[in-house]
Amino acid sequence: MKSEKVLIIGGVAAGTKAAAKAKRENPDLKIVVLTKDRHVSYAGCGLPYYLGDVIKEEKELLVKMPEDFLIDYDIEVLTEMEALKIMPEEKTVAVKSLRTGDVQTFAYDKLVLAAGASPFVPPAPGKELGNIVTVRTVTEATAIKNLINTRGIKDAVVVGGGMIGLEVAENLTLKGINTTVVELAPHVLPPYDADVALYVQKYLAEKGIRVLTGTAVKAFEDNGQGDVGVVITEAGPLKADLAVLAVGVRPNVDLAKECGIALGATGAIAVNELMETNIKDIYAVGDCAENTNLITGRPVWYPMGSTANKTGRVAAINLAGTGHKDTMKGVLGTSILKLFELNMGKTGLSERDARALGYDVETVLVTTQDKAHYYPGSHLIVTKLIVDRKTHLVLGGQVYGEGVVDKPVDILVTAISFGATVEQLTKLDLAYAPPFSMAMSSTIVAAHVMINKLQGRFTGVSPLDLKEKMEAGAVLVDVRSDEEFFLRSIPGSINIPLRMLSERAGELDRSKEIIINCKLGLRSYMASLKLKRLGFEKVSILDGGLTAYPFETE
Amino acid sequence: MKSEKVLIIGGVAAGTKAAAKAKRENPDLKIVVLTKDRHVSYAGCGLPYYLGDVIKEEKELLVKMPEDFLIDYDIEVLTEMEALKIMPEEKTVAVKSLRTGDVQTFAYDKLVLAAGASPFVPPAPGKELGNIVTVRTVTEATAIKNLINTRGIKDAVVVGGGMIGLEVAENLTLKGINTTVVELAPHVLPPYDADVALYVQKYLAEKGIRVLTGTAVKAFEDNGQGDVGVVITEAGPLKADLAVLAVGVRPNVDLAKECGIALGATGAIAVNELMETNIKDIYAVGDCAENTNLITGRPVWYPMGSTANKTGRVAAINLAGTGHKDTMKGVLGTSILKLFELNMGKTGLSERDARALGYDVETVLVTTQDKAHYYPGSHLIVTKLIVDRKTHLVLGGQVYGEGVVDKPVDILVTAISFGATVEQLTKLDLAYAPPFSMAMSSTIVAAHVMINKLQGRFTGVSPLDLKEKMEAGAVLVDVRSDEEFFLRSIPGSINIPLRMLSERAGELDRSKEIIINCKLGLRSYMASLKLKRLGFEKVSILDGGLTAYPFETE
Repeated sequence: MKSEKVLIIGGVAAGTKAAAKAKRENPDLKIVVLTKDRHVSYAGCGLPYYLGDVIKEEKELLVKMPEDFLIDYDIEVLTEMEALKIMPEEKTVAVKSLRTGDVQTFAYDKLVLAAGASPFVPPAPGKELGNIVTVRTVTEATAIKNLINTRGIKDAVVVGGGMIGLEVAENLTLKGINTTVVELAPHVLPPYDADVALYVQKYLAEKGIRVLTGTAVKAFEDNGQGDVGVVITEAGPLKADLAVLAVGVRPNVDLAKECGIALGATGAIAVNELMETNIKDIYAVGDCAENTNLITGRPVWYPMGSTANKTGRVAAINLAGTGHKDTMKGVLGTSILKLFELNMGKTGLSERDARALGYDVETVLVTTQDKAHYYPGSHLIVTKLIVDRKTHLVLGGQVYGEGVVDKPVDILVTAISFGATVEQLTKLDLAYAPPFSMAMSSTIVAAHVMINKLQGRFTGVSPLDLKEKMEAGAVLVDVRSDEEFFLRSIPGSINIPLRMLSERAGELDRSKEIIINCKLGLRSYMASLKLKRLGFEKVSILDGGLTAYPFETE
Repeated sequence: MKSEKVLIIGGVAAGTKAAAKAKRENPDLKIVVLTKDRHVSYAGCGLPYYLGDVIKEEKELLVKMPEDFLIDYDIEVLTEMEALKIMPEEKTVAVKSLRTGDVQTFAYDKLVLAAGASPFVPPAPGKELGNIVTVRTVTEATAIKNLINTRGIKDAVVVGGGMIGLEVAENLTLKGINTTVVELAPHVLPPYDADVALYVQKYLAEKGIRVLTGTAVKAFEDNGQGDVGVVITEAGPLKADLAVLAVGVRPNVDLAKECGIALGATGAIAVNELMETNIKDIYAVGDCAENTNLITGRPVWYPMGSTANKTGRVAAINLAGTGHKDTMKGVLGTSILKLFELNMGKTGLSERDARALGYDVETVLVTTQDKAHYYPGSHLIVTKLIVDRKTHLVLGGQVYGEGVVDKPVDILVTAISFGATVEQLTKLDLAYAPPFSMAMSSTIVAAHVMINKLQGRFTGVSPLDLKEKMEAGAVLVDVRSDEEFFLRSIPGSINIPLRMLSERAGELDRSKEIIINCKLGLRSYMASLKLKRLGFEKVSILDGGLTAYPFETE
């Protein structure tokens, strides 16, 4: 096979994956990986856990050392090397050594851009002060960890309530630091729907994390020693010995743009299914490259470690010259995170995205057990399904709770990838034994509820709309037992246990909208069928029941 | 809607599900459920855990009481009632009360047979002795539990090494009982492949459970007080204060057969996709009904609680007279179980089944982490993939280990349901964060290894064939470090660490087959590529590495 020179710019997930796979495809390739950092092939997604000592040692995050690549794979990895300029006509790259300042020219037959993404730093005054940090590299994370362990940080402000921001906030809290999250958007976790994100916010508040949403950071103030002391926000000043900037990342595209590589609509590097850019023999992979949404076919930019590994591998196969080809058709925007004991994941379109794209959307929020209710360690989870009313295609899902959520999310990922309808979900022969699942798994139950809703068997009310409906005169009827009602209920609700409903239905005003709630949803459904048989016309059910209710209860 | 009479024979999963769903579909139906047992709607799959006190109380297994059905659903449940004869022409069923002996006739418009399955009792002499039990009902399980708690059982023999047999053996062991499993087949868990089942047997042996395979039970001997004392097997006598018969179940079809309802090739009741039998207005659901294998289209009989719930629901929708229809296309033979800390699950065709059906089969055994290797609580799992070489369709999978296996099994269930190829598996946008998965999930890694194998990049050797190959002269080269090799290795293997392989390759005889092994498989793959570049022609890799090796190591 041809002994071509492959130059890879970037040494984390996508870059090192591309290097290792290309070498296995074609051992005759001469492969050089360049990285600005001191480390390569580190576990970027593990950094928040390293802060919180869930992962104790820096070395656990370092998957491979630069010298390992040479010994094990015959791949040359050069650290602290910054690519300055790509010259596609000559097929060369000018590279500066950050140690010596020397500039060298590297020739390539194939070039792979795996330049990653960089944290966006909001342009607030004082952002240069000490102890204002980002968490993108092992070097940064180790610096923060040293700061926490040596300086006795008491108060931290995390700017940004996305996944990384919340994971960092959790881990700072685990270290005993009083932590506030400031998010500009109306809720944390912007890719998730509001009903899910507000539930997370309620959970974080219970864990002692203060969350300010819809709030901009205006400035950082000096503590008198050159370090941050106070973060000034629209909601007032916040004391802070440490400010973590986690407002998001931007693709590193300057190098590409300057040499004429086309960017896509999202601002990341445009690539085809082979991971090729518009310039011959130049590939882009990982966080600097654009993705395609599998459902909509539209360009999106989801910088995820899992996608980085896949795209690195696809480029490697295509550039290796073996005749094999591989393609990357797209992604679903899957994500998952763990905050204390709460797990939450999503895939596909959110309700908000689906509506914005013009789909005729139906949603359900369905609360179930994650395994047999009688098996020890069983927990509740909530499944939000988003379905196209016309085609019944599953567009997306969000699953959250203290139980297992990664499994139902991955079932939905797989189903959506193959264009599943909600009816097809109900017949999946999913694995059942009491330690693992209910006999009817959470995904199947959620699909059943969706079908009932699509068939008009019940009408749902989103918890987000409940307050407004009640202010307009709707009556919230809780059909749980009086003991359950006594322990916890939604303000303003009245209690008529399901078994009393037929005889006590006369207490309800038929002219008003009746909204029914219970713990999970099944009793509400039974109650709504009962009331309809008794001639009530305006009956609906609180989606997700009390368990998924994202506001204060009493 | 029409106020028809629905009679349901059988009161566990399928029967009660059919009753409750039919009533929700059409509240005008008059529904009667008949059951021989004293209990209805119990958690049959939880019984083994109840024996081991994982589930403490009988009442936790009882999902609903007979009177709950009347109060909550307006469904009449009659217990201890045995259906004697169906008269399809008159649309009546003769039913005997087991309490009074009276026989009554029940009329129906629609009849649902949910008669379940019964444990098969092997015809060995002495099988009528005391303390020889089956575990199919709550009544039986409670009797065994009382026996254990009051009689001080020391030695138990479980006859049958299927899922229930092994779950019972685990739970008896947890109660401190010295337990032996006797299985007639060549290995436990007959639906699984031998390489997987032998791994389970090795694990059970480590947990102190003796397993005798390929061994028939010849007789049960009296302890002098009318109870079992010794179980006589082909492998000798076994002391036993308790013998649990778990050799499998048979569908309860006598009632159906006598009235002319057709049975299928498997001996269970033949049904169409609507769950209708050959006689008008008679449905069969749950364990007494036949299933269709989704991959082969052939009749199969997989009596599973999850399928029982699905088929009960499908029949309910179709008989309710609302105009809605639902269909059950088939199942994949999915199963899962937990034995101590070991989890194992399967779906689709086994390698053995696929070969018997004439597929051109390729398999891999791939060992990976279940989550990020650096995240606390990460464990190894082994994924066996079974693929059709011609079409690259995924035919089946078996996943086992102390890590999470239900998720990868359900990913495979969903993928196979939609006709996934192994290439499609590699691009699934599965949820990744360190607490939940590796960046490339186990399923994706297994699919990559399969593609490498299909492309001829390496040749695998099944651990089952290793001994024979070595006896024929093959050399087993372990390429782990010398420290790893020192701690544990396969008898007869020699150690050449991967990093020394190029310089020490001269020690290997090129005329012999070289089989390479390591802990997981990646180093073996690297080593095989290296040896091939050095001109070695007969190089293969031990599938699954040392981790999946199902025999003794040293």
